[in-house]
Amino acid sequence: MTTIVLDAMGSDNYPDVDVQGALMAAQEYDLDLILVGDEKQIREKIASHLQNKNLPIRIVHAPEMLTMDDKSDDLVRKARHKDAQNSMAIAIDLVKNGEADAFVSAGNTGAAMVTSLFRLGRLKGINRPGLAPTFPTETGKCLVLDIGANPDCKPRNLVEFAIMGSIYVEKVWGVTKPKVGIVSNGEEAGKGSSLVRETYPLLEELDINFTGNVEGKGVIRGEVDVAVTDGFTGNVMLKTAEAVAKLLTNKIKETIMKGNLLTKIGGLLLKPALGTVKEALDPSDVGAAPLLGVDGLVFIGHGSSDANAIKNAIRVAKEAVETDVLDSMREAIEKK
Amino acid sequence: MTTIVLDAMGSDNYPDVDVQGALMAAQEYDLDLILVGDEKQIREKIASHLQNKNLPIRIVHAPEMLTMDDKSDDLVRKARHKDAQNSMAIAIDLVKNGEADAFVSAGNTGAAMVTSLFRLGRLKGINRPGLAPTFPTETGKCLVLDIGANPDCKPRNLVEFAIMGSIYVEKVWGVTKPKVGIVSNGEEAGKGSSLVRETYPLLEELDINFTGNVEGKGVIRGEVDVAVTDGFTGNVMLKTAEAVAKLLTNKIKETIMKGNLLTKIGGLLLKPALGTVKEALDPSDVGAAPLLGVDGLVFIGHGSSDANAIKNAIRVAKEAVETDVLDSMREAIEKK
Repeated sequence: MTTIVLDAMGSDNYPDVDVQGALMAAQEYDLDLILVGDEKQIREKIASHLQNKNLPIRIVHAPEMLTMDDKSDDLVRKARHKDAQNSMAIAIDLVKNGEADAFVSAGNTGAAMVTSLFRLGRLKGINRPGLAPTFPTETGKCLVLDIGANPDCKPRNLVEFAIMGSIYVEKVWGVTKPKVGIVSNGEEAGKGSSLVRETYPLLEELDINFTGNVEGKGVIRGEVDVAVTDGFTGNVMLKTAEAVAKLLTNKIKETIMKGNLLTKIGGLLLKPALGTVKEALDPSDVGAAPLLGVDGLVFIGHGSSDANAIKNAIRVAKEAVETDVLDSMREAIEKK
Repeated sequence: MTTIVLDAMGSDNYPDVDVQGALMAAQEYDLDLILVGDEKQIREKIASHLQNKNLPIRIVHAPEMLTMDDKSDDLVRKARHKDAQNSMAIAIDLVKNGEADAFVSAGNTGAAMVTSLFRLGRLKGINRPGLAPTFPTETGKCLVLDIGANPDCKPRNLVEFAIMGSIYVEKVWGVTKPKVGIVSNGEEAGKGSSLVRETYPLLEELDINFTGNVEGKGVIRGEVDVAVTDGFTGNVMLKTAEAVAKLLTNKIKETIMKGNLLTKIGGLLLKPALGTVKEALDPSDVGAAPLLGVDGLVFIGHGSSDANAIKNAIRVAKEAVETDVLDSMREAIEKK
């Protein structure tokens, strides 16, 4: 049976949202769950849902937690500390020692990355792990990596992202020969920053379906399944995309609120349809981004995750476990 | 009287859209216009609008034009050719020799940049010009530069973009002490690529209102008036933002079309309101992006510009002329 360990102190609304998402996942999917965090708070939260008494959920107490206030130096120190008592470290150690198959957290992204990296180590042959969220596109979705772990990248890093991203999408999403592009400021080969131009020929040599440069609009149009980029560009892309979507929905809401009676009636009639649009573009449907390149399965979600996002993050982690994606990555990196 | 020269062969729908936009501008604004392109085609187009016979428009014939098919090498060769006969070169020469105060084109962006750069030269003290489009934001608009002229930048380039962008927004937009941010993957000082971290202290020393790092979402939220970045990141930002806005409006249309009768009625009632949203976010309202750093006023619009975008580009060019923005930039760069 697949066992997923969840940092119950992760989301902005911990542990309520995290525990609720876990209960939903335990009811819907066939898996064992371990919740790590303040035992008393977690028990109280579970107890408030009486019907859940017999779910396959185990609690492991963690007296401390990492927050947005922990600075980089603290995080590194705590990540390295053998007997760290925070929920992330204890949860990740359960993956390390084989008690759990994958780790999920909606906590501080930097904290989750640093703690995973120091406690699990890197996959053999990987220079730097990459965080890989899913972008909604015109035709479905696209895995973009890296989006923040590495603001400065070398060609080698992008090559590793391409291999890992391609295998992840093939195994976990079930896409045959996923199209892999490198994010650039023009489609033609030869366009791009010096990093892109140096990386391009290396990607051509790989045993992946490399389709060349892809522009920001190409990613959103769904031209590729995997888009590789340095963490700086990826981060700016992700945050711009999220903000534009929000800007547009805010403007629509505002215009409806300020409109005349007919506009308001139109708004009411369209509400369910706009809900469908929101759902189609909702990151909570994907739940969390895999941190590819650490020696273990790690999924990091938005701090603003709701219970549904936590549930989906657990589902995606379970799928990653059951498709043996980590072993496939190991093999591909050795062959490289 | 301010004189603007327009490349009449610029837009995807040349010369119709370009001429129509020029006629609108000539009617609405107090200025002289020169249209450069195929004289016969332009005359026919103007003649089809009888009421425009006495507008202050002069035509200068250009037997050739640059297109998307011109490759970089060709463009450079043509840009350097003393007697180049294409509409861009002839139009830019009118700025160079003082017959016109500013140049506007909706043609091939690369062609317009290269031709401007070689024929006008750079402002004294400027290493590289930057293309500066306007992003719509939650609170208004933000000038972002560079968005494509320079995929690889040095700190010096970003410093120059900051000075020029700040002066442009202060003079042409009338914003007092515009807030200038540097695009980064985190708000805190110290976050960013090595380029951002090296540039940050240099921006702090300038006589501008530097507010530090700004994330992609901060730009869209309207946290700054000017966002400086390398041309690679700026290009990816712009194209991602445009594509996400399009994705969202397409999804809304699709959902309305596929919906039941009430949804469709809602869609009809909301149509004017959604039109208002589109207008608020429409790049055609801004018309064109200034190419800052060349020794002359150059405005480059989208190939997909409509007549309204051309008209607005001409308006913005006129405002730039009349606020003496170029002289202010010269002074600021000398003081630096």
